[in-house]
Amino acid sequence: MQAAKPILYSYFRSSCSWRVRIALVLKGINYETVPIDLIKDGGQQFSEEFRALNPMMQVPTLKIDGLILGQSLAIIEYLEETRPTPRLLPQDPKKRASVRMISDLIAGGIQPLQNLSVLKQVGEQNQLPWAQKVISSGFKALEQILQSTAGKYCVGDEVSMADLCLVPQVANAERYKVDLSPYPTINRINKTLLALEAFQVTHPCRQPDTPAELRA
Amino acid sequence: MQAAKPILYSYFRSSCSWRVRIALVLKGINYETVPIDLIKDGGQQFSEEFRALNPMMQVPTLKIDGLILGQSLAIIEYLEETRPTPRLLPQDPKKRASVRMISDLIAGGIQPLQNLSVLKQVGEQNQLPWAQKVISSGFKALEQILQSTAGKYCVGDEVSMADLCLVPQVANAERYKVDLSPYPTINRINKTLLALEAFQVTHPCRQPDTPAELRA
Repeated sequence: MQAAKPILYSYFRSSCSWRVRIALVLKGINYETVPIDLIKDGGQQFSEEFRALNPMMQVPTLKIDGLILGQSLAIIEYLEETRPTPRLLPQDPKKRASVRMISDLIAGGIQPLQNLSVLKQVGEQNQLPWAQKVISSGFKALEQILQSTAGKYCVGDEVSMADLCLVPQVANAERYKVDLSPYPTINRINKTLLALEAFQVTHPCRQPDTPAELRA
Repeated sequence: MQAAKPILYSYFRSSCSWRVRIALVLKGINYETVPIDLIKDGGQQFSEEFRALNPMMQVPTLKIDGLILGQSLAIIEYLEETRPTPRLLPQDPKKRASVRMISDLIAGGIQPLQNLSVLKQVGEQNQLPWAQKVISSGFKALEQILQSTAGKYCVGDEVSMADLCLVPQVANAERYKVDLSPYPTINRINKTLLALEAFQVTHPCRQPDTPAELRA
């Protein structure tokens, strides 16, 4: 019996979903996308059906190996442990720590503070300055950390989980019109990564649920 | 030459610092505490001296093995890889995924949305309802997830990283007067864990920087 194809519940614009899409493609895992529209019908993630899958009512959610997993970094760590090639965490524990520190800085210290559900709370006229402040202050710290960790990519010269977090966060920054000129290292690494196929095919402008006017 | 004693930059009330304190004690790592007062002088984490250590200007920050690490979960994963006994992640990859999912749910999905820096932004009269809403909605999801993962503790019968996140988050919930009665599993596990010595000696009411009136 063939193992069921993994199913990724995803939203084209969700930066956390994009992280997991890159991991799946880099590791050569053939998967099916089920789009969850975070806007339409007040948010399809709030449906009873989806809530039964992921009580956090968030994308990404991945069905794989009989498991249903939420939380993008937990998903990537699981893929890394069960499909180790190509690796997304370096071998050296100190470098692994740098990768996880940068990933957590973005996934815990920036993204949650500028996601849709928080922006709804802060009121429409405060949304843009709020998002800009959160992203700028995170990027300022990240730019400094990268001075001691980066090679070609965030940590040395191998693509890692940290890079899977960086590119989608830069896309959010651009969407919220954050001035990126103070972060030359972030900019350089982002551009280098965007040239890689795995980052291109998983891009929000090329998903099954990308609206026609945003496709590229 | 003896290796330098690890230094934990910590604040007694910081739930993220508490997670790391528990890990250090469980693993029998002798460490020194340097208190960083997040309130006094407008926040000692914003000093130039501390910023040079951790550009995110956050506690916990751990100096260990010649590294300076921020982000509590990245720190705990590093300790796990370099000091594997007793383990804080189960052996089975599926159980490890559950531990990381619960840890990220708390560390990325609840705590960042109710920490001091966000509460400052939402305005004084909105702070309590904001924090209560964030914690309740996270706990509602967590309670449901625990139905399929919990044994004596969050995942099975071994203390794991997920438990190190749970107890400090419940303490925050109590501080913000969240009604915990809808979460009997969270309550039960929290009580069981609080009986363990590693959770007691690291408790916010027993730190070098705990103010006299809050000591117990």
